[in-house]
Amino acid sequence: MTLDAVLARIDADLPQALERLMALLRIPSISTDPAYKADCARAADWLAEDLRGLGFTAESRPTPGHPMVVGHGGAGGRHLLFYGHYDVQPVDPLELWARDPFDPAIEETAKGKVIRARGSSDDKGQLMTFIEACRAWKAVHGSLPGRLTIFLEGEEESGSPSLIPFMRENADELRADLALICDTGLFEDAVPAITTMLRGLCKAEFTVRAASRDLHSGMYGGLARNPIHVLTRLLAGLHDANGHVQVPGFYDDVAELPDELRAQWQALAFDHGKYLGDVGLSLPAGEVDRTPLEMIWSRPTAEVNGIWGGYTGAGFKTVLPGEAHAKVSFRLVSRQDPEKILKSFRKWAEAQIPADCEILWHDGIEGSPASVMEIGDPAFEAARQALTEEWGRAAAFVGSGGSIPIAGYFKTVLGMDAMLIGFGRDDDQIHSPNEKYDLDCFHKGIRSWARVLARLA
Amino acid sequence: MTLDAVLARIDADLPQALERLMALLRIPSISTDPAYKADCARAADWLAEDLRGLGFTAESRPTPGHPMVVGHGGAGGRHLLFYGHYDVQPVDPLELWARDPFDPAIEETAKGKVIRARGSSDDKGQLMTFIEACRAWKAVHGSLPGRLTIFLEGEEESGSPSLIPFMRENADELRADLALICDTGLFEDAVPAITTMLRGLCKAEFTVRAASRDLHSGMYGGLARNPIHVLTRLLAGLHDANGHVQVPGFYDDVAELPDELRAQWQALAFDHGKYLGDVGLSLPAGEVDRTPLEMIWSRPTAEVNGIWGGYTGAGFKTVLPGEAHAKVSFRLVSRQDPEKILKSFRKWAEAQIPADCEILWHDGIEGSPASVMEIGDPAFEAARQALTEEWGRAAAFVGSGGSIPIAGYFKTVLGMDAMLIGFGRDDDQIHSPNEKYDLDCFHKGIRSWARVLARLA
Repeated sequence: MTLDAVLARIDADLPQALERLMALLRIPSISTDPAYKADCARAADWLAEDLRGLGFTAESRPTPGHPMVVGHGGAGGRHLLFYGHYDVQPVDPLELWARDPFDPAIEETAKGKVIRARGSSDDKGQLMTFIEACRAWKAVHGSLPGRLTIFLEGEEESGSPSLIPFMRENADELRADLALICDTGLFEDAVPAITTMLRGLCKAEFTVRAASRDLHSGMYGGLARNPIHVLTRLLAGLHDANGHVQVPGFYDDVAELPDELRAQWQALAFDHGKYLGDVGLSLPAGEVDRTPLEMIWSRPTAEVNGIWGGYTGAGFKTVLPGEAHAKVSFRLVSRQDPEKILKSFRKWAEAQIPADCEILWHDGIEGSPASVMEIGDPAFEAARQALTEEWGRAAAFVGSGGSIPIAGYFKTVLGMDAMLIGFGRDDDQIHSPNEKYDLDCFHKGIRSWARVLARLA
Repeated sequence: MTLDAVLARIDADLPQALERLMALLRIPSISTDPAYKADCARAADWLAEDLRGLGFTAESRPTPGHPMVVGHGGAGGRHLLFYGHYDVQPVDPLELWARDPFDPAIEETAKGKVIRARGSSDDKGQLMTFIEACRAWKAVHGSLPGRLTIFLEGEEESGSPSLIPFMRENADELRADLALICDTGLFEDAVPAITTMLRGLCKAEFTVRAASRDLHSGMYGGLARNPIHVLTRLLAGLHDANGHVQVPGFYDDVAELPDELRAQWQALAFDHGKYLGDVGLSLPAGEVDRTPLEMIWSRPTAEVNGIWGGYTGAGFKTVLPGEAHAKVSFRLVSRQDPEKILKSFRKWAEAQIPADCEILWHDGIEGSPASVMEIGDPAFEAARQALTEEWGRAAAFVGSGGSIPIAGYFKTVLGMDAMLIGFGRDDDQIHSPNEKYDLDCFHKGIRSWARVLARLA
């Protein structure tokens, strides 16, 4: 019954919650542009003060870049850390905005009410869902829902240069039992989702070198080795006809999807036709024995991201180049080790090329492994049920094809898992003009966190 | 015995022949640079006047660009047309020249005397070998060695824009029984050579299109079609493991080398190790069942001259591009038809790509076929014997891996074969600073033409 009271409080307080969000949105905390440095500090101060009003011992803490907001409050239960970021993307091109990006407003649209402003979705609106949930809880219970640390960054949109040093310097203070991150979205705009698997990434840029200089294809064509041919053969052999990567040992550390997740993903009934159709494609092009969701969430990839060699300008030059180049990246899953994968790729590639050629490698063998959360931790199932209740649709543990760096950092720097729950929609236009956050996402987002906290507390 | 008299006259007149060549070399007839337009006209006038002195009815004829020099003279026997070009390459970078490029001099070098100046080899020195042979002939015989047309171009180094129109407009006047062209070199600097096969060329630039825009490899990698992968597979399949082109019908119109030429080429004992070693390679990389000389002279090729797609700048962008591009060219031999080859390539390529992709072709299906001279014409064997006598080494019918456009134009526009005989050496540095022509090449070149004309007259 106490949860009901909190939810009722949230509903009743929504106009005030919107007022507070708008106040935060009015601060142009663009982290990439030094002209907005004071505004970033102001946003941090605003948040620290708001948190103090909720009983947190919160402050804006200096870094070489923009400040971090750190607050501690509550007691009992699992120690939860909540992460969000108060900085926003630049607003150019300004002329494409229908209104001042820092003069937020509630607008009626065909799809319902939206909060229109830079940062409304990414990430001020999302981070305030958590703070408002705490506020309602405090109002009803007189205390926070357990031991909480709030950790808000101001450099997420500018590469987070201060993040890892700050986490390292303050590791004991920041380390909690579980991190909560609110910077993701609903699955297909409707299904509440907890991201529990994020693919890792490693990269290889290299040059295939044959002749010591570019050759005239009349004088040498048909006799001299063409490094573009060598490179295309090499890259064509990266996958077999079934889409499987041919680098030896590539799949050694790839675990099969647990049956429970497979069932959840099947229930999502992912419309890959629409997903691909939106970008002019229709057919899944990955491993033939995998579902589209597996392809992007739980299977590793080898993709050529760039290739170049010879004459690429207007017209023709019948040259046999001395070199050809490629950039290849691998999305990693499970326990795949970036260093092991890159070493294996190098060895495989070097074995493919003919005697007269060599491969020059242009970078190291670093990368980031996948982040795979321990969903056996009951907190995950508890949160899933909480979200299911709020949204009226079975929430799912989903994957993310790309990396979300902060989740990896919590794992590698602080040794803790993260639960990524967010309420954005695909049409929020984050990073673009006319960013918005749906009012129902904000409202149900606050209610979602109240439900999650009720179960975790 | 009359040939001996001509050769003696050539030997005796060499100092004067050099004086004349130097006078021509002093005229900076750089055709690409409008600042030298008057100099080009002056070179044409100089040549027309020189030819008139030999009894030709010669004149400098205007074109929209630089003038053509056309002269007719002599009578009897086969009508021979001689082609050369009086324009020269630009001289930049001037600071790399040891002397003024238009202040010619005879220099002693470790390898013997050389004529140093821009154009000394390409092509003023070479064209003057023919004119000096005519001069000596006239001096001894009182007349030219048969019916001759001299045709000297002033735009060879700037793409010959006026050449084909001029040839078409004056086709009846220019059409002869055989063209002689002096703009090539000795084989491996020592063996006199008549180029009788020149490969043709056709080109295809195309784009493989998959998604309608660039995709994030985190969101789409493993699921969406990567057009770089499609392109590399397509191009990797262009040759089989033995170096044979896989486009259906590609070899249909390729004749085997006649036994006589095969024997001549074997006798050349081509040092492909050195040829490849000079550019940092060591192993022939073409069709495994062909000799290196066949690979560059008498076999067709498919070479990728350029490839590009995705992100090619510094650093990394984990993009799945929407498009990937390539430029492919085919060197053609025998009776291969450029249009047929390109159509076959297009059909083959389109059959390789998956359903979700398309190929956009960026150019037409034109090209130039190979030029293969009728060496059954006794003039060729006669010239070969003449050259053998002069140089003391068995002259050979050789091929040229690249096209020499003028030879093709004589065939396609005027319907006549060409005999390409030249005396350049690989170290002549044509198109580079410090161009030279070996004095012995000039001298023996004049004598060579006298011998050839004696046999053809």
